[in-house]
Amino acid sequence: MATIKDIANRLGVSVSTVSKGLNGASDISEELRQMVLDTAVEMGYSTKRSKKEENRKLCILIENMDYESIDEFGYDLVLGFKQNAFRHNWDVDIIPVTSSLQAEEKYDTFLLKNGYCGAFLMGFALHDEWMQQLANTTMPSVLLDNYISDNPNVCYIGTDSYEGISMAVRHLHKLGHKKIAFLNGSLYSMVSDHRQEAFEMAMESEGLTTSEDLMAYGYYVSDSAQYHVPGFLSAGATAILCGNDLIAKGVINECTARGFRVPEDISVIGFDDIPLAAALTPPLTTIRQERNELGKCAYIILNSLVHHISISKTLLRPKLIERESTTRVSKRTSNH
Amino acid sequence: MATIKDIANRLGVSVSTVSKGLNGASDISEELRQMVLDTAVEMGYSTKRSKKEENRKLCILIENMDYESIDEFGYDLVLGFKQNAFRHNWDVDIIPVTSSLQAEEKYDTFLLKNGYCGAFLMGFALHDEWMQQLANTTMPSVLLDNYISDNPNVCYIGTDSYEGISMAVRHLHKLGHKKIAFLNGSLYSMVSDHRQEAFEMAMESEGLTTSEDLMAYGYYVSDSAQYHVPGFLSAGATAILCGNDLIAKGVINECTARGFRVPEDISVIGFDDIPLAAALTPPLTTIRQERNELGKCAYIILNSLVHHISISKTLLRPKLIERESTTRVSKRTSNH
Repeated sequence: MATIKDIANRLGVSVSTVSKGLNGASDISEELRQMVLDTAVEMGYSTKRSKKEENRKLCILIENMDYESIDEFGYDLVLGFKQNAFRHNWDVDIIPVTSSLQAEEKYDTFLLKNGYCGAFLMGFALHDEWMQQLANTTMPSVLLDNYISDNPNVCYIGTDSYEGISMAVRHLHKLGHKKIAFLNGSLYSMVSDHRQEAFEMAMESEGLTTSEDLMAYGYYVSDSAQYHVPGFLSAGATAILCGNDLIAKGVINECTARGFRVPEDISVIGFDDIPLAAALTPPLTTIRQERNELGKCAYIILNSLVHHISISKTLLRPKLIERESTTRVSKRTSNH
Repeated sequence: MATIKDIANRLGVSVSTVSKGLNGASDISEELRQMVLDTAVEMGYSTKRSKKEENRKLCILIENMDYESIDEFGYDLVLGFKQNAFRHNWDVDIIPVTSSLQAEEKYDTFLLKNGYCGAFLMGFALHDEWMQQLANTTMPSVLLDNYISDNPNVCYIGTDSYEGISMAVRHLHKLGHKKIAFLNGSLYSMVSDHRQEAFEMAMESEGLTTSEDLMAYGYYVSDSAQYHVPGFLSAGATAILCGNDLIAKGVINECTARGFRVPEDISVIGFDDIPLAAALTPPLTTIRQERNELGKCAYIILNSLVHHISISKTLLRPKLIERESTTRVSKRTSNH
């Protein structure tokens, strides 16, 4: 675990400056203090809390989502949440959740027993036991990418899929693409549903037609590509929009293996902008989810729920990140 | 993003002149100052958030909405916003906005010139000039009950109309009502559109049928009732759901004047829960918007936008407030 000295070394400041930052002393600037706190969280430093603050604890519950390495989708979400929470003197525990833990203990019981004032849930699926229990929970709960109706203690947070997919479709259309295929993520996921609806709406509003042989659900992994790309290519797709960057990686590989060059013969666009995206060959054009901001925002919302402001839904803006996997449609491809 | 130096180069003046223009110094002409501001806006310059507390100013811009008396819809919104903002050392100015002010000065120019870091806009209509300009504003802006797509500096905040209307319909259905009429607010309002769609969805999901003679748009005022209530009554409505509490007040009066007792013969339900609702005869069952929380939340979101967290949409939960204007459907009425 990082010490004050480690933090000081990393920032190139003195140990006493770091110490002041961590203790909220008034004779350092607010900016420096936040930098110290952010770095402390990032390096895994944890303070000893005074007795009275002992009960200010939140948790991040994670299922089916990788977050431990900086390359993974959940990493920046966790970091952003902790950075903001730490700044407001909350302790945060990260708890990987299994089905057996959910079967063993009710959601509310688990939180209460462990002294948590609220939770941020990432990666849960609709059929999970704790998800079912969220309909009636009395614990402030922020839920990534899922919506629970009618319970004032639960808020849905995510990136606006409608705006993201619409950006992607407009970007491709502007490059001359008309036969745009969509390889979505898993069925039975709210986010996939939104993206599917968003794709059909965006195509229609651009005056483009969709067809069954240019749309498919897969899973949010690269392997999905092999089952659907051949069909898209023979149906004449000139561009493939993917449910996330991992799918896009698989799509690029699959196209390349079949002698289609990306982007000269076929444009590919992802969703998320995880670090992998920029490192692909070619670097991936994608719709960025600002995961650090999303994590920060999840904290802000959870803190609001704790203070009885019943927010039901908060969406962040996506961003189009243009790299090299999309280009103007080629004459050859668009006619084949 | 443009710097002070870019602006100086474009105008062929010194950096210090631009700086004076932006800071409102008195030793440059008003014309030059206006030119500096207009150019700054045009080039996408946005104020550096000064560390000096004196520049920490936000504004609430209000059009077409009453807020000065505690009875009025906007009062608690303004209060909640100011409460949260003051707690975080922001100054807040309340500015009633007219069409002529909007014609006189561009939105961004107005904010920059007056040193505001961001604005909360209440009561604006889609056709307002400043609303049009929000599509491209570089100023952090939170907008009550209206949505601007694709601009990361603007966030929509409101109460979830879908959940609110659905609560109302379920409440009435549980009381045995099937012929439920809906007197909506004004056409050409995003909120009215949502409530209309929500009503049709909720009726369908309750297995109830809607019909043209039981739905109408009016205006968000009591007078609306007289034009539509007679038709609803003769079409056999046993309950009337209203776009807001003012409409509900008119509906109760109109029903009473025609010899229908509320709630014995006809149930009436409002939306908003302004103080008037509890004071009506009978006290009005309504869907509450937590306006103080909405104001507090508007501040939280605006502060997030100022710190470059691009939230696009935040919705609060409505609450069903059961009073005496709704009751179990009577045999007599339901058969007539």
